[in-house]
Amino acid sequence: MRDTSSMPSPRSIRSVDVERLAAGAIDERADDVAVEEPLEIRISGETLAITMRTPGDDRELVLGFLLAEGVIASVRDVASVVHCGRTTDEGRENTIDVTLAPGVRPPIDAETGMLARRGTLVSSACGVCGRQSIDDLIERIAPLPLGGRVPPALVAASVSGLRERQPLFARTGGCHAASLVAFDGGHVATFEDVGRHNAVDKVVGSRVLANALPLSDHILVVSGRSSFEIVQKAFAAGIPVVASVSAPSSLAIDLARRANVTLVGFVRNGAMTVYASKDRMSG
Amino acid sequence: MRDTSSMPSPRSIRSVDVERLAAGAIDERADDVAVEEPLEIRISGETLAITMRTPGDDRELVLGFLLAEGVIASVRDVASVVHCGRTTDEGRENTIDVTLAPGVRPPIDAETGMLARRGTLVSSACGVCGRQSIDDLIERIAPLPLGGRVPPALVAASVSGLRERQPLFARTGGCHAASLVAFDGGHVATFEDVGRHNAVDKVVGSRVLANALPLSDHILVVSGRSSFEIVQKAFAAGIPVVASVSAPSSLAIDLARRANVTLVGFVRNGAMTVYASKDRMSG
Repeated sequence: MRDTSSMPSPRSIRSVDVERLAAGAIDERADDVAVEEPLEIRISGETLAITMRTPGDDRELVLGFLLAEGVIASVRDVASVVHCGRTTDEGRENTIDVTLAPGVRPPIDAETGMLARRGTLVSSACGVCGRQSIDDLIERIAPLPLGGRVPPALVAASVSGLRERQPLFARTGGCHAASLVAFDGGHVATFEDVGRHNAVDKVVGSRVLANALPLSDHILVVSGRSSFEIVQKAFAAGIPVVASVSAPSSLAIDLARRANVTLVGFVRNGAMTVYASKDRMSG
Repeated sequence: MRDTSSMPSPRSIRSVDVERLAAGAIDERADDVAVEEPLEIRISGETLAITMRTPGDDRELVLGFLLAEGVIASVRDVASVVHCGRTTDEGRENTIDVTLAPGVRPPIDAETGMLARRGTLVSSACGVCGRQSIDDLIERIAPLPLGGRVPPALVAASVSGLRERQPLFARTGGCHAASLVAFDGGHVATFEDVGRHNAVDKVVGSRVLANALPLSDHILVVSGRSSFEIVQKAFAAGIPVVASVSAPSSLAIDLARRANVTLVGFVRNGAMTVYASKDRMSG
């Protein structure tokens, strides 16, 4: 439980080197970011789900998930919940195995006769870890070319311009949005959705439909935090800059650095924090 | 594209009857909420993924998703993208079928020889729709008993108290949180996570571990929007009140009304909007 202390769990937070741009000055400093890592949930060794989460309290996470999914009704339906893998495995902390109590039925997919899988990532045989997820992506997609320069003022204008293009948010206060802005300042597309990742998919998909890929020399602006999945979607579309009014996760930063995606957060009041591939930001 | 007009798409917004509580007065009125509905993405008739999204621009959503997943590299890899099902089917608008161009390989799971599925919901044979998702849940879990009264002042204090229990957010500005507060005002648990649903799973899971279910006479406070999935998790744990500083989605409201969960949003400055099961709020 993380409520009895004013300090977050050490596994949930990481310090990263960043550049803070404000009032024309560049300040190199260390910033704290929330850790994001995959967790593979297994039942008797078989993968049930993989979720991106902040490490810590994994047993609680798994029991709450199984209750919501209707797999268990109480702690009596669970024989054990343990992290698994060899203690030397990097993915060990990210794999947890549940043994159900005798008589409790796991959720079986009628079509395949196997566990009905949930989640958005494919399991790797050796357990999951963020570094492996990034390696797999980099193997599939080459890191973006390092060319192109984007002035901080354009990033600031793109982020502040997003709010004016959110009619659904203006009416409901309850949805996310993503925009694509060209390096020449031209607005290309904005879409809204209750899901952050959906808004990004719609933006990219509209350019797929227009046969306008890759999206080099463009900025992707998102209304919420920048997670691993958001940077992955930008990378796959060849978008070299991701900017947001909010914070990125640790894994989003790791991926952006490997993929040569410029990742900018806390873009507010003309100031911003650059977390990855800062050379693309012309001062 | 939703950027050329100041009006949101009519399919993306819905008006609902709410009660607005402010300064001791109750105002019955209609409020706009963002629509949330499942979308089933099929490849040649077989389910690839189900995602909760705001209807509209589904083709763009699907093409962006397939690009990010590495299934397609451009629009030339796609032969067609069409909504499917009989035009009279309620789920027709929520099912979309992709035919890949000749020679483009769908993502096959090596273990099962079938499509590698993504997503968090199980498909129903007749296509998906939000109403069906709710029917399925209500069949599995009985609606909560209508008893118990919670004063608006306690809901307001619970929501404003959440921020003081977010040490990871205080350090990073980049994560969500969920709290459980008893009707007597006692704080039970707070957890933080980069994922909203994970924070809720950790809260509920901690009470599963303590063998303290069901969680009647408790309020679940979440730091972000209340989606269908958040209300589902509260319902499965028997939590009768869900409160947030932000907005609920249409499907979250529909489920809360069927499940007898009191759903409160925009809890700010002592005022709040009640979207479902308002009788539990004693004035």
